[in-house]
Amino acid sequence: MTDLADKILAGDRRSLARGITMVESARADHRAQATALLDRLAGAGRQALRIGLSGTPGVGKSTFIESFGMMLTAQGLRVAVLAVDPSSARSGGSILGDKTRMERLSRDPNAFIRPSPSQAHLGGVARRTREAVALCEAAGFDVVLIETVGVGQSETLVAEMTDLFILLMAPAGGDELQGVKRGIMEMADMILVNKADGDLKPAAMRTVADYAGALRLLRKRAQDPEGFPKALPVSALEEQGLIKAWDEMKMLADWRREHGHFTSRRAAQARHWFETEVREGLLARLHNDPAIRGRMGDLGAAVAAGEVAPAAAATEMLRLLGAAGPE
Amino acid sequence: MTDLADKILAGDRRSLARGITMVESARADHRAQATALLDRLAGAGRQALRIGLSGTPGVGKSTFIESFGMMLTAQGLRVAVLAVDPSSARSGGSILGDKTRMERLSRDPNAFIRPSPSQAHLGGVARRTREAVALCEAAGFDVVLIETVGVGQSETLVAEMTDLFILLMAPAGGDELQGVKRGIMEMADMILVNKADGDLKPAAMRTVADYAGALRLLRKRAQDPEGFPKALPVSALEEQGLIKAWDEMKMLADWRREHGHFTSRRAAQARHWFETEVREGLLARLHNDPAIRGRMGDLGAAVAAGEVAPAAAATEMLRLLGAAGPE
Ligand SMILES: Nc1nc2c(ncn2[C@@H]2O[C@H](COP(=O)(O)OP(=O)(O)OP(=O)(O)O)[C@@H](O)[C@H]2O)c(=O)[nH]1
Ligand SMILES: Nc1nc2c(ncn2[C@@H]2O[C@H](COP(=O)(O)OP(=O)(O)OP(=O)(O)O)[C@@H](O)[C@H]2O)c(=O)[nH]1
Ligand SMILES: [Mg+2]
Ligand SMILES: [Mg+2]
Repeated sequence: MTDLADKILAGDRRSLARGITMVESARADHRAQATALLDRLAGAGRQALRIGLSGTPGVGKSTFIESFGMMLTAQGLRVAVLAVDPSSARSGGSILGDKTRMERLSRDPNAFIRPSPSQAHLGGVARRTREAVALCEAAGFDVVLIETVGVGQSETLVAEMTDLFILLMAPAGGDELQGVKRGIMEMADMILVNKADGDLKPAAMRTVADYAGALRLLRKRAQDPEGFPKALPVSALEEQGLIKAWDEMKMLADWRREHGHFTSRRAAQARHWFETEVREGLLARLHNDPAIRGRMGDLGAAVAAGEVAPAAAATEMLRLLGAAGPE
Repeated sequence: MTDLADKILAGDRRSLARGITMVESARADHRAQATALLDRLAGAGRQALRIGLSGTPGVGKSTFIESFGMMLTAQGLRVAVLAVDPSSARSGGSILGDKTRMERLSRDPNAFIRPSPSQAHLGGVARRTREAVALCEAAGFDVVLIETVGVGQSETLVAEMTDLFILLMAPAGGDELQGVKRGIMEMADMILVNKADGDLKPAAMRTVADYAGALRLLRKRAQDPEGFPKALPVSALEEQGLIKAWDEMKMLADWRREHGHFTSRRAAQARHWFETEVREGLLARLHNDPAIRGRMGDLGAAVAAGEVAPAAAATEMLRLLGAAGPE
């Protein structure tokens, strides 16, 4: 364990991968080892810039991560890429894999790419990813990119574990602005309108202007300096606007560090993480204790057979668990 | 309460709305009343066809529900529309409201439209919606449509409370097929390619063929008769293909009823509902018990201040709760 921790601290990528595999394991002995490993590494106090990246399918997340990641490593930075995949609960991701879209980055010695852990619950994926982030930080990565797809819960989870949350958008007609859920826009620290190239460039520039306006309306927070949150055009394919976007990210992060918001955000996130672990631990009783598991099974069968109403069965089960009813 | 139950059973829409408000309330006295109301109404044994409808923002869900709903009420059917909004956790829906898109349906005396309850957790929204479905069934609605947006968790929740799960898609180039998450496709009982009108019609027909092929590859289940799951073209705007789609939905539902799959799906859903209620009830201890709530607050503050690591604080809290560690 100490050996693995030392190797991770020395930046060894194979050891990092092994550590993440340990963190992702559901086995009780692995979990204990993972907790010990995380404890040990926390002492190093290393911090990466954690960047969350989200966008609907096909917007160019994979292409962007490849280009943006290569730009960062070209600046001498070490980059780790993790993913939170909300649909992995059922299938394990999109029909076509991502390997081909990140070919250069995956061969770069200063980059580390890890796909989303496959887990039954998004909460489980989030937990593993948070712990993987901690491992990447200990391994000395400067930037940890966390990708997620979708419009909903997974963005919130990613925003809750990152320092900056970036929304990648496609060029659109003005009418489509409504399609962006307000809640997701409110979480965004920056909107990047991708595919600002070729035929799509004029539409992309209009979309940038639209989102810039919408962002100003939706969110003016004490956490943001003047002029933020910003909308900017990029082309992941033609590698345009990436350095500018990175400069703006750094500016925002620096401003927040100076004004104490960076630390307070991380503090709130740590608290949230603690509360989540408590909730997960409570729920673990339902499957860890054989007697409880058995009664759950019996009552579940009775509910399925229509002999007991779901709510009534739940009330009985909760009495057994010594808990009051819901809410 | 009996009075309210009777009025709901008589199909009174204002009473139904009051019942749903009660079900959505977080107040303990309301919750007790809601449970009593649900118990009382369950005895009526009324069943609607529950149809889940999902699709990315802008695909035309609201327009479809308006047209499809009007087509159903024209057939003499009573239609209720509910929504599960994954982003309501933060904001309460999209920037532009939906009222204007469902103007006719919202004035139809045989229709009932209810927006998504605003709740801190998607799980809470799901629970309220499940209970609202039960109220709509008791009120004698023939069809309950449950809409959701997004790519991820909320579709799963909606699929878990409906008899049929329909995916609304936009016409697309062949390349974009990859953007559909496999897990969502696997849940779909039918794919409707919307906007099959005007310029978009040829693309829509191609997309139908693409999805029909993908569906055949992804899912051939004992729950489906020969030829299902199907992909069909519709135009919500021009009200084309809606009757055909409805006929296919009825055919699928009837087939499942005959073969016992309809009942077994509802049984599995009831079991799932029970298990979810138990989990929620367990977690309620964290905020209902003042001593526990206080200790949570203190430890949370210590974690935020960096004095205790999140995992260590969680372990302490779980010991206090008499639960083992996570997993
Ligand atoms: N013109 C143009 N096309 C792009 C750009 N970035 C990505 N694309 C194209 O958009 C399509 C989707 O790109 P991906 O990077 O796979 O998109 P994604 O967001 O990762 O998609 P999912 O993994 O399915 O969620 C591909 O055909 C890319 O070549 C860009 O900057 N300009
Ligand atoms: N051509 C055409 N346009 C349509 C059709 N259905 C909807 N639209 C248009 O597509 C746009 C979005 O429609 P909505 O019904 O609001 O889409 P939605 O899926 O409810 O969008 P969100 O509520 O944002 O998730 C609007 O401009 C509609 O007029 C259709 O059948 N054909
Ligand atoms: Mg991708
Ligand atoms: Mg809508």
